Amino acid sequence: MTEEPQKPSRRERLRAQTLQEIEENSFAIIDADGVHALSIAALARSMAMSAPAIYRYFASRDALVTHLITLSYQQLTDAMAQAVHGSRRAPRARIGLLVTAYRDWALRHPQRYGMLFGERGEDLPADAPGPTPLDQAMALLIDVLTAAGDGSPSDGSSGDRALDGQLKKWARSQERPDTSARVARAAIVVWTRVHGIVSLELTGMLEAQGIEAQRLIDLEIDDAVRSLSTPA
Amino acid sequence: MTEEPQKPSRRERLRAQTLQEIEENSFAIIDADGVHALSIAALARSMAMSAPAIYRYFASRDALVTHLITLSYQQLTDAMAQAVHGSRRAPRARIGLLVTAYRDWALRHPQRYGMLFGERGEDLPADAPGPTPLDQAMALLIDVLTAAGDGSPSDGSSGDRALDGQLKKWARSQERPDTSARVARAAIVVWTRVHGIVSLELTGMLEAQGIEAQRLIDLEIDDAVRSLSTPA
Repeated sequence: MTEEPQKPSRRERLRAQTLQEIEENSFAIIDADGVHALSIAALARSMAMSAPAIYRYFASRDALVTHLITLSYQQLTDAMAQAVHGSRRAPRARIGLLVTAYRDWALRHPQRYGMLFGERGEDLPADAPGPTPLDQAMALLIDVLTAAGDGSPSDGSSGDRALDGQLKKWARSQERPDTSARVARAAIVVWTRVHGIVSLELTGMLEAQGIEAQRLIDLEIDDAVRSLSTPA
Repeated sequence: MTEEPQKPSRRERLRAQTLQEIEENSFAIIDADGVHALSIAALARSMAMSAPAIYRYFASRDALVTHLITLSYQQLTDAMAQAVHGSRRAPRARIGLLVTAYRDWALRHPQRYGMLFGERGEDLPADAPGPTPLDQAMALLIDVLTAAGDGSPSDGSSGDRALDGQLKKWARSQERPDTSARVARAAIVVWTRVHGIVSLELTGMLEAQGIEAQRLIDLEIDDAVRSLSTPA
C-alpha cells in the first residue's frame, strides 16, 4: 500500500494563493510605476486587504522587496537557461541565445530590470549575501565561454594580475573553480557590456542616436569571444 | 565714456536667487531619495513656499525635471572638459582622465546619474530633441580617440556595414562629420562599457563580487583603444 502524498490543508492552499496574489499585485505596481511606488499600504489598497493582513506574509516592505528581487532574478535566469537548454548549436550561437534571453527579459520588464540592476536608492534593500540566482546565470555563461575558448590552451593574462586574481576568485564563487582568468574576464565583460547597452536602450538614448542596440551587442560579444583565442 | 553694464533690477535679482534655490532644493531631494521623490508639493514644502509660487518658475513638474536633467548633463560635461583642458598628456591618458571624471561624477551623484541614464519611468520626461550637453562630452571623446588612432589610415569596418553607417551618421550629429566608423565605434563602446561598469558599481554588485571597477574600466578602455589600430 503506497502512501498518498499528503494534500495541503485548506488553510495552506489559501495561504499559497494569497502569497501568489501578493506577488502578482506587487509586480503590477512595480511594472506600472517602479519599485519606489510599492508600499505595503499601496499593495493592501490594490488587493482590498488590510495592511496588517499583508504583514502576516511579509514582516516589512524590505522583506517583500527582497522576495520580489529573488523572484525576478529567478525569472531572468530561467529564461536564460531555457534559451540554451538542449541546444547543440556552436558556442558563439549559444552565447547569443543567452544574451538575447537576457535582453528580451529586460525589454519586457524594464522596471523589474531597473529594480535588479539600477541605482539602489533608499527604497531598495541591499542584496542578500550568498549565491543568488544571478550566479546561476553567470555559471551558464562561463560554461558556454569555456566551450567557445576551446583550442586555446593559454590561460592568458589581462596584463593586470590583481584583476586576474579577483576574476579567478569570483569564478570560484560561481562554483566554476577551474575557470581561467581569460574566461572569467570574458564572462564579466559580456555581462557589463550587455548591461551597459541594454540599460541605455531602455532609456531610449541609443534609438534617439539612430544606433541599433542588437548590432552593438553582436559586435561586443564577438569582441569578447575573440579575446578568448587571441594571444594576449 | 563707456556705457555701464546695466544692473539687473531688484526684481530680476530676486528671481535669479529663487531659481537657484529651486535648483539646490530640488537636487537635495533627488540626492536623498531619487527623482521620483521630487514633486512640486515636496519642493514647495522644503522651501517654505507655496506650490503656486513655484509654478511661476516652472509650468509643470516635467518642465522642472527637464531643466534639472539639462543642468546635470552640463555639470557632467563640464567636469569632463575640465579634466582634459590644456592637458598635453598622451591620448590614452587623456581618455583615462575623461572617463575618471565621468565615473567620479557618477559616484558623487548616484541619484542624478540614475536620473540621466537609469530606466526612465513614468516620472521622467523624455529627452528634449536636439544636441544635449552629453553630445559635447561625446565630441570630446571622439577628438581624443581620433588622436589615439593616429597612424592608422584604414577606416576599418566592424564587419557590420549597417552599424558602421549608423555610427558615421551619429558622429555627424555630434558635429564631428569626418569621424571614421572605427573611431565612432570606439567612442560608443567606451561610453556603453563604462556606463555598464559604473552603473553596476553603483549597485554595489561588483564590490560584492570582489572585482575592482577601475581595473575593469582600464582593461576595457585599453581594448577599445587597441581596436583603433589593429587591422580589422
